Parts: sequence; C-alpha cells; structure tokens
Amino acid sequence: MTQNIAILGASGYTGAELIRLIATHPSMQIKALSGERKAGQPLAQVFPHLRHLDLPDLVKIADIDFINIDLAFCALPHKTSQEVIAKLPRDLKIVDLSADFRLRDPEAYEQWYGNPHSAVDMQGEAVYGLTEFYRDQITNARLVAGTGCNAATGQFLLRPLIAAGVIDLDTIILDLKCAVSGAGRSLKENLLHAELSEGYAAYAVGSTHRHLGEFDQEFSVLAGREVRIQFTPHLIPANRGILATGYVSGDAQVIHDTLVAQYEAEPFIEVLPMGETPSTHHVRGSNFCHIGVVADRIEGRAIVIAALDNLTKGSSGQALQNANLMLGLPETAGLMLAPCFP
Amino acid sequence: MTQNIAILGASGYTGAELIRLIATHPSMQIKALSGERKAGQPLAQVFPHLRHLDLPDLVKIADIDFINIDLAFCALPHKTSQEVIAKLPRDLKIVDLSADFRLRDPEAYEQWYGNPHSAVDMQGEAVYGLTEFYRDQITNARLVAGTGCNAATGQFLLRPLIAAGVIDLDTIILDLKCAVSGAGRSLKENLLHAELSEGYAAYAVGSTHRHLGEFDQEFSVLAGREVRIQFTPHLIPANRGILATGYVSGDAQVIHDTLVAQYEAEPFIEVLPMGETPSTHHVRGSNFCHIGVVADRIEGRAIVIAALDNLTKGSSGQALQNANLMLGLPETAGLMLAPCFP
Amino acid sequence: MTQNIAILGASGYTGAELIRLIATHPSMQIKALSGERKAGQPLAQVFPHLRHLDLPDLVKIADIDFINIDLAFCALPHKTSQEVIAKLPRDLKIVDLSADFRLRDPEAYEQWYGNPHSAVDMQGEAVYGLTEFYRDQITNARLVAGTGCNAATGQFLLRPLIAAGVIDLDTIILDLKCAVSGAGRSLKENLLHAELSEGYAAYAVGSTHRHLGEFDQEFSVLAGREVRIQFTPHLIPANRGILATGYVSGDAQVIHDTLVAQYEAEPFIEVLPMGETPSTHHVRGSNFCHIGVVADRIEGRAIVIAALDNLTKGSSGQALQNANLMLGLPETAGLMLAPCFP
Amino acid sequence: MTQNIAILGASGYTGAELIRLIATHPSMQIKALSGERKAGQPLAQVFPHLRHLDLPDLVKIADIDFINIDLAFCALPHKTSQEVIAKLPRDLKIVDLSADFRLRDPEAYEQWYGNPHSAVDMQGEAVYGLTEFYRDQITNARLVAGTGCNAATGQFLLRPLIAAGVIDLDTIILDLKCAVSGAGRSLKENLLHAELSEGYAAYAVGSTHRHLGEFDQEFSVLAGREVRIQFTPHLIPANRGILATGYVSGDAQVIHDTLVAQYEAEPFIEVLPMGETPSTHHVRGSNFCHIGVVADRIEGRAIVIAALDNLTKGSSGQALQNANLMLGLPETAGLMLAPCFP
Repeated sequence: MTQNIAILGASGYTGAELIRLIATHPSMQIKALSGERKAGQPLAQVFPHLRHLDLPDLVKIADIDFINIDLAFCALPHKTSQEVIAKLPRDLKIVDLSADFRLRDPEAYEQWYGNPHSAVDMQGEAVYGLTEFYRDQITNARLVAGTGCNAATGQFLLRPLIAAGVIDLDTIILDLKCAVSGAGRSLKENLLHAELSEGYAAYAVGSTHRHLGEFDQEFSVLAGREVRIQFTPHLIPANRGILATGYVSGDAQVIHDTLVAQYEAEPFIEVLPMGETPSTHHVRGSNFCHIGVVADRIEGRAIVIAALDNLTKGSSGQALQNANLMLGLPETAGLMLAPCFP
Repeated sequence: MTQNIAILGASGYTGAELIRLIATHPSMQIKALSGERKAGQPLAQVFPHLRHLDLPDLVKIADIDFINIDLAFCALPHKTSQEVIAKLPRDLKIVDLSADFRLRDPEAYEQWYGNPHSAVDMQGEAVYGLTEFYRDQITNARLVAGTGCNAATGQFLLRPLIAAGVIDLDTIILDLKCAVSGAGRSLKENLLHAELSEGYAAYAVGSTHRHLGEFDQEFSVLAGREVRIQFTPHLIPANRGILATGYVSGDAQVIHDTLVAQYEAEPFIEVLPMGETPSTHHVRGSNFCHIGVVADRIEGRAIVIAALDNLTKGSSGQALQNANLMLGLPETAGLMLAPCFP
Repeated sequence: MTQNIAILGASGYTGAELIRLIATHPSMQIKALSGERKAGQPLAQVFPHLRHLDLPDLVKIADIDFINIDLAFCALPHKTSQEVIAKLPRDLKIVDLSADFRLRDPEAYEQWYGNPHSAVDMQGEAVYGLTEFYRDQITNARLVAGTGCNAATGQFLLRPLIAAGVIDLDTIILDLKCAVSGAGRSLKENLLHAELSEGYAAYAVGSTHRHLGEFDQEFSVLAGREVRIQFTPHLIPANRGILATGYVSGDAQVIHDTLVAQYEAEPFIEVLPMGETPSTHHVRGSNFCHIGVVADRIEGRAIVIAALDNLTKGSSGQALQNANLMLGLPETAGLMLAPCFP
Repeated sequence: MTQNIAILGASGYTGAELIRLIATHPSMQIKALSGERKAGQPLAQVFPHLRHLDLPDLVKIADIDFINIDLAFCALPHKTSQEVIAKLPRDLKIVDLSADFRLRDPEAYEQWYGNPHSAVDMQGEAVYGLTEFYRDQITNARLVAGTGCNAATGQFLLRPLIAAGVIDLDTIILDLKCAVSGAGRSLKENLLHAELSEGYAAYAVGSTHRHLGEFDQEFSVLAGREVRIQFTPHLIPANRGILATGYVSGDAQVIHDTLVAQYEAEPFIEVLPMGETPSTHHVRGSNFCHIGVVADRIEGRAIVIAALDNLTKGSSGQALQNANLMLGLPETAGLMLAPCFP
C-alpha cells in the first residue's frame, strides 16, 4: 500500500534530498510540498535537478490538507519547526529534521538555542531519531526528532564505547571536518564559493557548537554520570560529508571489537578492518557510515574515525529510515543507493 | 528472471559506475568482475565506496566462465577492448564502452585511433549505442558500441537539427566543457588535483579530438552529405559532467520546436522551456540530459546547450540502458536515480 | 616620491586585490580606504589576509580629505560610482573600476545598464582603460575607466585581428569560461559553494551580457563599420580566471603573426608558440595574459584563446597599471608578481 | 650586490615556489636550475606560469658549475638529497628542503625514513631551519635543513608553550588538515582530482607520519625530557595550506599571552586576538603564519590553531628566509607578498 507523504520546507537542501531518496522508494508517494516564500512555484524552478519527477507545486503549509497524509517530514528551520508542528494534527506521524525536539530537557534546549521552547509538552513525546540506538521506540513513535548531522557522526563512533566502558570518559576529543551543505542554502559570506573553495578553518571553537547539547544528553545517560567531550568542527571546501576524528584513551583492539559487535547486523554501518580508515568520498550521496579504528603509537590511546554524508545518513536518509520504521515498511526501502564516486 | 552480468575492466570509473547503477537494478546480478592487474583483490579494496555490496572478487578475464553470463559490459581501454571481444563467445551479448566499435569504417578508425583495427568483421556487426536514435537495432543487437561521452552530448543537441534541416551545416561550432572523470583513472600530471583544481584550459584544440570521428560518421549519414563541425573540448575542475555549448545558424524557435518534438516521449532527455539553459550540477550522478535553446541577439543564430553526466548518460548509464533493451527488460530499469545535488 | 592613494570601495574583491598589489609597490602609500557599511572597522576584520599590513581603518567617503590624495581608485558598484565620482574634486586623478565610464555614448550606456547616466559630461572626459591600446591617452588622463574583465580578455584576442583585417568580421564567436570572483562578494544563491562547486553552466546567454556594449563600441571603431560578435559566458567552479575561446575565420598563421607583432614589446601579454594554448592556472594571481592560436581542421578557420586573472589583469592589476602611467611611474611597478601555481 | 642562486630539483612544486618568490627578490639572481629527467627543457615548458621570467634552461646537476654560485637550494626528494649534497663543494652554502638533515640522530633518521643515512657527518653540521627559533645558528650556517611543513606548523604552535611550561606535556594532540601540494607533483591515484576533490580522509593515522621525528627531537630538547605527541594528518581537497588544530591542557589566557610574547617582534607570525581563529585562505601564497587560541568549555583545556601555506612558510618561503640570513640580506627580502585571496 502506498504511503502518502508531505514534506514541509521542501526548498532547502534536506528537503531536496528527501525528494531524491523518495523518488525511488517503492511505497511512498509525495502528495504535498511546502515552501512559504516560494509557494506557487513548481519544484523544478527551485531544484532543476528534480525536473524529471512528477511532483506537486510548492504550497503554503496552511494550504495542505493533512487528512490524506500518512507522514510528514519537517525540514524547516529550528524554532519555526516547533511552532509549525504544534499546530499539525495530533495523529499525524511526523519526522522532524530540525533541532527542536532533540533535547528532552527544556532548560538544555534554551541554553543551547537561546530561546524558550514553545512546545514543551511535545518535547516529552518526541523520540530521539538515531535509528540504530532507538529502533524500537521509533517504530512506535508518532513524532521523531532527527539527530543533528555532527551529533549522529560522533554518536556512531562513541556510543558503543561509552556504553561498554572501554574508553576513558574524561578525555574524549572529537575533531570534525564538515562539508558546506550542512550549513544549508543560506546566503552567508563564508559560504560563498570564492570564500570557501581552496580554504578551510575551524568554527564554533571551544566546544560551543549546538550539537554538544545532544552529546551531553546522550552520553551522560549512557554512562550514568555527566560526560563532557571536546568537539571542534571545521568547514571544509566540499559539498557533502562529515569526517569525525575521535581521540580516545582505550585499547584499540577492544574498541574495534566493540564496534564490530555493535554494528555487525546493521545495514548502513560498516566497520572497516582494523587499521583502515574511511573517506567521505566513499559514502557520498548514500546512507552508509564507515568507521575505522587505529592504535596510536602511544600505548592505551586510539584514533576512531567515522565518515558519513551529512545530507543522507546525517539528515534526510536517517529521516527516511525512521519513517520506514514508523510506517511498518522495510527499514532500508529507498535507501540502498550506492555512493556516488567519483 | 535475473540476468547474469559480467563487467570486464571493473577497476576503472566506468566499471564502478556500472556497479553503482546495477546495485539497485531489479533484475540483474553481477556474476563476474575482471581486472587484470588487480585480479584476486576484493572490489572493496579498489572501490571502498562499493564495500556494502556482495560482489565477486576481481579475476582475470581468462578465468571467467561465460557459459552462465547473459551479458558482458566491456569497460576496457580501446584497442584492448577489440582484442578481448574478438575472443569472447560469439553468442555472448556485449555492450562495449570503449571506442573500438563506434566507427564503422576501418579507415576512419585507423585515422582517428592510429592503429589498424584488429576485429574488422565485428566492426560491421556492432550497433552504434546512442539509444534514442538506434533503439530498434540495439534491441536486436548482439554487440553494441557505446557512444563517446562528448559525442553523445553533441549528438543529442545536433542530430534532430541536422535531420530536420533547420540549421546551416557548414557553420556548426561545439564548445565543450568536460569534467575530469572522462579522462579515467589514469595517472597523468594534468589530472592531479594540484594541477587541475582552480584552473582550466582547452585541449585537443583544432578539432583534433577523437570523438570527431563519430560526429563525422553520424552527421554525414543524417545529412546525406559530408558534414564537418568544429569542436573544442575544455577540461574543467569538476569530477562529473559535460556541458556542450553549440553555436548554430537557424531560427531559435524552430530549433526549440524540433528538439521538443524529438524528445517529448524520451524518459531521459529533458528539453527546457525556451530561453532556459542547463547546468551540469542538475544532472550529476543521473542518466538525464538537459537541453536548452536561446536565440542570439544576431538574427538567425541560436545557442543550444546540453548537459549530462559523462559517467552516466555519457557512458555507463547509456550502456545499461542499451543492455536493458538487449535483454528485453524495461529500458529505464536501474536508471531512474535522481541527480545528486548539491 | 611616494604617491598617496585612496581606495573607495575597499571591502570588495577588487579593493582587496588593489591593496594586495600596492602592498609591494615601491612608491605608493595607501592613505584612505572607504567602505560605507563597514566604516569604522579595521580592514583586517573585513579581509584577514591583509592583517600584516599597516593600513588606515575603513571610513565613509564623505570623511576622506582628498587634499593630500594623488590618485583614487573607485572600486564601487556601477551607478554608485558615477554618483560618487561626480562629487569628487575635479583635479583628483581617478581610476574607476566600475562599468560607469566605459561606454562613451550615453544611449549605449542606458541600453546596457538600464538607467540614464547621471554624469554625462564626465563620460566624455573618461579615457577607456585598456592600457595596451590607450597608453598615451591614459598617461595624460585625469579619469580612466577600467575595462570590464570579460571585455578586456576578448579585446586582447580580437583587437589586433580586427584592426589588421585578418579575420571575417561577421562570424566572430567568443565562448568565455569565467571564475566566480568576477561576480564579486555578493550574496547570491548561485554563488554559494554548494551550488557552484562541481557544476557549471552558461549565463547571460544570447549575447546579452553587458560587456558586449564595450565590444560593440570598440570593435566598430576599429573596423570602421558596425561589428557585432556572439559572446556566451559560463560560470566555472574556480575562484580566479577567465578563459576566452574565440572562433574566427582567417588564416591561423597570419593571425598568430599579427598577435606576435602586436604584443612583442608588451610586458604583460605573452603570445604562446603557434599551436600551444593557455590555462587560467598559469596566470592566476598575476597581471599576465597568455594567448594561443591553433588552426582548425577546417581550412580558413582558427581558434584563438586567451587566459587572464579577472581580478588582476582583468580589473585591479589593469587599474594599477593605468595609475602608474597617470602618475608618471614605471608602468610595471608593483605588477611583476609571478602567478601563484599550484 | 647580487647573489647567484642555483635551484636543484626545480621541476617540483617547491622548486617552482622558490622561483616565484625569488622573481621579485631585489638581490638574488637565478643562475642554474636542475632537473635530471627534464634536462635541456626550458622551464616554461615544465612550468608555463613562469614563462615571463628570463631563466636558464634545466640542466643536470653534474653540468652546473658551482664556482659562481653563492647559495644552492636543494628541492630534491629525500635520500637523493643527501647523496647530491655530499658531492657538492664543501664551501657552498646550501638550504636543503628535503627531510634528509632535519634529524640529528642517525638512528632516528633510519627509524623514520627506513634507510641508513649516507652522509652522517653532514647531519651534524646541518642547522635545523625553523627560522624563528634557530635564527643565530642559521645566520652562521653553511648547511640548513628546512623544517617539514607539518612539523613547522606544529612547532609554531607548541614550542613556546612547551618551553614556557604552560601546557601538560603528556596530552598534546595535533590534528592537521593538509592541502594536496604537500604531497608534491607525484603521480599517485589518491592525488588525482577525481579521487580527492569533494572528499577527504585521514592518512598516516596512529602517529606514524615522518614529521613526528622532528616533533620528538625538538620537543624533547625543549622540555628536557621525552615528549611524545599524537598527530593525525588529513588530506583536504585544496591545493595549498596546512591547518593545525592543537588540543592542549593549560590556561587559554596564559597560552595566548605566551604566544603573543614569543612572536610580537616576528615579521611573519601573527597571533590573532584571543578567541579568534585562522583560515588557510588568509595565508595562501604568502609567508605568513596565523595563530589563534580559544578556551574550551572544559576548564583547563584550550584549543590552539595555526594556519600557513605549506609551499611558502612551510617550505620554499622558509627556505628563502633562511637563505637571506645566510647571505647577510634582510630577512624579509622577497617574502612580503600579501596572501592571494580569494
């Protein structure tokens, strides 16, 4: 049976990525696409690469009839998302790609995002959308909050290690290299080709990036105590990809064994043979995440590295994976596309 | 019924692209992959982005048992290809991606490629693989010669115009902008990142590029007289894509009408509304070709522009489209992936 | 004797490029830098790469005392430039980098730029700044109008050929490949890294680009009759560079001889040996222009190709070259930096 | 008085960069350029971007008469370099850009480079070329060993902190992001544009990179005890630049004060205001190094980041700076070029 889908905020990169993935999904059909400022336009005008698809024109959210929609993806900016979702039908299944329902604690939300949450009751209802670790809850959820792309990458690396107690909790450092599509389609000077191409730099230095809120929340629960990691993202002149280099104290072989055991049944997480490390090039455009482990020359220290595509496994692919679960469809439906290399 | 597939020369970019596309094909299974120098290696070592697939290891061609193979793709270098194909079983269906069987005239082959053809009899048997124009012959062919990526792009633009007699035949100029994967995975100084990134230049200037042999052959047949176009390719710092800018004498509206009429039933060729022009970004990773037409300020002249992905519609996608026809499968099977943007 | 320099509009790319070049100029000192919206900021905040220089803070133009300024560069947007220049002291030497004084005919200006010119009297006074062809007038000029970067590239190729009568005037086609810094530091969606990197497309198709006004003006004067060329620019994923591929009817050897004779004494124009063609990579960051000529396989046709850096020879380098002449300094002062490769 | 210069190994990137810098040096003249495999060719054929310069053709080293050479730069591969230098006149001043004389201990050399040193006596003579820390010895040296580009970047960050005792010596982590020209002009698959552009990955993971030998040597001397840091380089899709992100335990303000005090008189090292961080884009093509310090949210930890151009300050610029000292010239001669942005 075909599931009817709405995508709210379809004119951004995560919206476009959802459409790209759903285009070959065997049992989903896109029934509504919203874009407040671009309402009335055909999607091919906003995203000419989707020109070959038979899609509804962009409309305002207020003009969507949700009665026939089985599931809505919200690819809206944070803050807007919570306001919109609060007004949607209470029985509509929703996968939110924004940051609005990732943090369960309203105070933590306000601390990291700078504004009080306007839908605190739904914060409690939302299930955290890191599929591989919340699969059962997601299957039964009405509202799923997509994990941040950086937060997902770091958690794929660190969750099994923290849970298994095989690394020191007080010396975790995560150095991220992020491609530019993670910043969205926003008109900022540092995102211009002439400013970014051929150059790179750190940002949100000093562990001030908002995705730390997710790390703090999740890792502390896992460890049963407060865990605070260091995390520095860098903006790299590439369009897609996150590479997370983790520096941890622990035995590399035990770390590798732990990760292999954790992920061996997972369709999208590939733990490389011991000593090999991943490249963003090898996951681009796909829902796969590659993980590598190497022992440092200093005994008792290891480097763990993960690579994924921020728009796919880090965002829209993850969202579709969750939607599949929520709708009782095969989890991998529409998601087995191989990476696009070169 | 599943068709068993072999890919000869699987360690190059067109081989990898074939595997990427076949990975989601509903009725093809890869049974053999060859790579002479890398025989014995698992494909994941050569192409880590295909690690998630369950594929046979690379072997030498001599070690493949073709008895159970329904169709072989030859993604070998030209000259090697004709030698290999000559020794394959005579009832094996073959799609050749090299240049070896594109030219029907052995003299023309020798002129453009510098060596006498070693399988002249098969030259006559081979069907030219530009699907949209040789569909019936391809359906019944045993051996199909894939069109060159530049030659395909130019023919999508010009064939309908030459056939309809709506442009002057003596003043056609084609200025191509080609991404680097068209040069293959070969170790040449000008293909290094440090040499190519941030710079661009023409090559094979003076209408000396080998794909001109295909233009000469095809356009002259269409026109019923000798046609010689000018053609200058340029190497652009990007990985995938060909943009062909054609300068022609003719009425832009008539040209647009001719192209629309030609392609309206084609699943992969999109003629843009009059006055709009395509970008390689909007076809990347897909089998689509976008075509635009604009009238010049000088009366009676028009600019026609086509964009496609050299590895997909220009090579491996085209090859798969032809294989589908040869095997009686739906022509678009495995090929409806949306472009990967951004 | 040190010449005191003001740069109006110092917060854009051409402003920054002027400062970069003047930084090693032996007899110029920057006394004032303007930036209306960023007045009060140190330049290092706007352009951290110039941090090591001892420069005045940005101010509003109204706050500059021009009494001690020997020459002002105007790197302002067109239209703004004419309004500002009209109010500057009438004895101040000015090199304008905008489009405002390039066209001598007020009607042509209005046709191409869409607004009536507000300083028509100064339009007549301005000297066209293509140094190699207006050297004497520039030396004696008070106000020099910098040539457009595309217009400069095309003229370096075509002026000698038109003047010498060695090419057909009615079939000239210029296909340009332009890097993105030519579009300035403006916040437009198509200039974002994620939209441009890995993709390319034509723009201003149909010979509608404003720099055609300059070609029309200059070529018609040279030929003594109206000349209209075809000109299609393409936006390439690179930061600096223009590559102009010209398709002309004429004898390639005569064309090469004509260009060699024209430029042999020029310090910045290098005509390559017959048959060689230039790359933007080999002029990047420098004031050099490389030109190549190749005969086409079709008798009587030739391809002529020029490469330069749009920010240097196409704009700020050209402006400095003109300023040197106007101030009685050696023409090459501050301009002999070798290209930055790779 | 003009100093006569020879460059051995002029056909690689560091050779080209030396020529670029020396091109505007007021008192150096290039008298000989060597390239064993390309002997006999004009340099313009190997590096067309240097076409405008009046340079000697490439010759074999054996054909250079060193009698009139004041100083030779050796930009040869390591191992070759020690063999060549051992045979040069013993009174010739030499700046070696290879790794051959960086390590003073023959055993350390053999451990990191895999072969015994063939000029052990000269190892002792050589002065380590990190100008800002070995200025006096370099001034009086005959043979100077250029610091590795990664090693230089890390030492600019860490030397003052280790010497001052303001950071913990046992928890230093250096995460480097390196542009591709650091790998030289060698034909390797992972250096191809199609393999590197749009993707990035770590290499030499596990603190196995050869530049660690330099860190071990230098930091241990400074600290008066053995110091072993962790160091992971990453290959980034850009042509020039190294960004070193250092994770250290110490007080950020004290760290910043220490760096400011160390570098305030240095012409090429810019310590940014507290809390600001550098970009490789802002030093590209120049001899400058920008350094930033930020306090982490975890008390007692800091992030220190340095950016420089691997070909300039990391290699050829550093070499020229040392040559200036050795020849009694102003240290900054030929080196004050502003970065090339965008």
